[in-house]
Amino acid sequence: MSIKIFGHQNPDTDTITSAIVLAELESKLGRDAKAYRLGEVNKETAYALKYFNVDAPERLDSVTEEDTVMLVDHNEFQQSAPGIEAATILAVIDHHRVANFETNAPLYFRAEPVGCTATVLYKIFNENNVEVTRELAGLMLSAIISDTLLLKSPTTTDQDEKTLYQLAEIADINLELYGLEMLKAGASTSDKTAEELINGDAKTFEMGERSVRIAQVNVVDVDELFERKDELVEVITKEIDANKYDLFTLVVTNILESNSKVLALGEHHGVIEKAFDVALEDNAAILKGVVSRKKQVVPNIEKAFASLYE
Amino acid sequence: MSIKIFGHQNPDTDTITSAIVLAELESKLGRDAKAYRLGEVNKETAYALKYFNVDAPERLDSVTEEDTVMLVDHNEFQQSAPGIEAATILAVIDHHRVANFETNAPLYFRAEPVGCTATVLYKIFNENNVEVTRELAGLMLSAIISDTLLLKSPTTTDQDEKTLYQLAEIADINLELYGLEMLKAGASTSDKTAEELINGDAKTFEMGERSVRIAQVNVVDVDELFERKDELVEVITKEIDANKYDLFTLVVTNILESNSKVLALGEHHGVIEKAFDVALEDNAAILKGVVSRKKQVVPNIEKAFASLYE
Repeated sequence: MSIKIFGHQNPDTDTITSAIVLAELESKLGRDAKAYRLGEVNKETAYALKYFNVDAPERLDSVTEEDTVMLVDHNEFQQSAPGIEAATILAVIDHHRVANFETNAPLYFRAEPVGCTATVLYKIFNENNVEVTRELAGLMLSAIISDTLLLKSPTTTDQDEKTLYQLAEIADINLELYGLEMLKAGASTSDKTAEELINGDAKTFEMGERSVRIAQVNVVDVDELFERKDELVEVITKEIDANKYDLFTLVVTNILESNSKVLALGEHHGVIEKAFDVALEDNAAILKGVVSRKKQVVPNIEKAFASLYE
Repeated sequence: MSIKIFGHQNPDTDTITSAIVLAELESKLGRDAKAYRLGEVNKETAYALKYFNVDAPERLDSVTEEDTVMLVDHNEFQQSAPGIEAATILAVIDHHRVANFETNAPLYFRAEPVGCTATVLYKIFNENNVEVTRELAGLMLSAIISDTLLLKSPTTTDQDEKTLYQLAEIADINLELYGLEMLKAGASTSDKTAEELINGDAKTFEMGERSVRIAQVNVVDVDELFERKDELVEVITKEIDANKYDLFTLVVTNILESNSKVLALGEHHGVIEKAFDVALEDNAAILKGVVSRKKQVVPNIEKAFASLYE
């Protein structure tokens, strides 16, 4: 039986491509290995696979004690295939913290504090003197673009950057052009309903006596989303009525420019002006440098409420 | 504060030398790092350090949340420094299973299924193009000799063997001569009392109605130990009288030749002849190919008792 290689649940581009790339490496080193995926291929990954003419891996639902496996882009068991505790784990290639992981026997465990699994895999290709083909380079550079948002994420390391440029040369590709198209394919909101957009990643916060709902959508094209503003306002207004929110804030974050545009509705929407020192125009405003709900949006609104009403 | 680098508790040669070697590598890569040890340096390790003129690391009793550390030759927290859960772990270089280990942040975690940590460290030197000096080569080859018993242990891999020969060339040393002397220094029994020898690693087994004590001592020179046979017989006889053992078996295992010589005393000492198909001479016999108490000595004696008396 082949060695099964897979990344984490809710797969992203790094997880899918790293499974394919490692299976290819193992095959070249003489091992019978096959890549799998634990969930649906997202649009960004689909774009990359299609561009480099590579098939998506087969779906895998669980593993058993009969299975010999290698994990990429994760190590924590709760993020892995159901049954992983019983399987024989031969190798892990990762770039996350190590936790909730255990084996009975020694294994090859290679995690490095870099921005992307592909950056580690590229090293391993070189260490084993295995040629990186154009397709493999394309898959690995897609993973790095995805995980580092074209080198703009604060998780990016010098190694990721250096590796990305080397891979771009092998793949003979214009990084900016390809990368932007790939990220756009993934961040496209055109196929989502307004309800999906405002509920996909939304949390409610109790601030004093006010109930504040804050939804966030990551995009590469803010305007594309705001063209549907009337539709969004309609569903948000329904949400406010149904749940008695005092404020509903939709934060549309441009992942490439590290800015957000906010749409604020509800009785207390005006608090946004105080919170971010901006003027709302038709209930909307640009929030320069704001990308984090947890570290920026929530505390700023909380402070503004406190100073205005208490 | 320097990065603290250390191996496991009850340190052996691989653990001590790997801490020193990694601290040297980190220093050469521009990091402020220092090697430590969690316990006493054993005689084998002391021999290696003296031979290559390297000081033993300072002792470390515990770490705190203030500490930034790197672990070598282990990863399980219960084998590490007290307080390890709170420390910031930057790196792990190891060759054991992964278990009971957890970090909050990504780290450099490099474990490989080879016979010795030094084999992994030598790779990392090469990957970073850092020169391996004669002293460092000497420390690393000492670790490989120790962990693989001069390549004779079943845990030895091709990589350990290849690395050992490369290091021997750098250190300009006769592997067989040096290795045997180093292993002898560690397996020397001359500094131990007869009581220490028969109690150091001894277990009692109930076999039917008989009480059987089986002690094991690992050596590189069986004769050295058997020169003290009269002294050993005296203390074993006292043990038998005090504890009413039906059989006391001292298994002296030559770790280089994978043989043992047994000394059998007590009313039922004759069962050893049946158990191993040997003739006892002055209560002693060579047991060819016998090295494991758990897998060879215990079951054979158990079977012999069963067929003779039940």
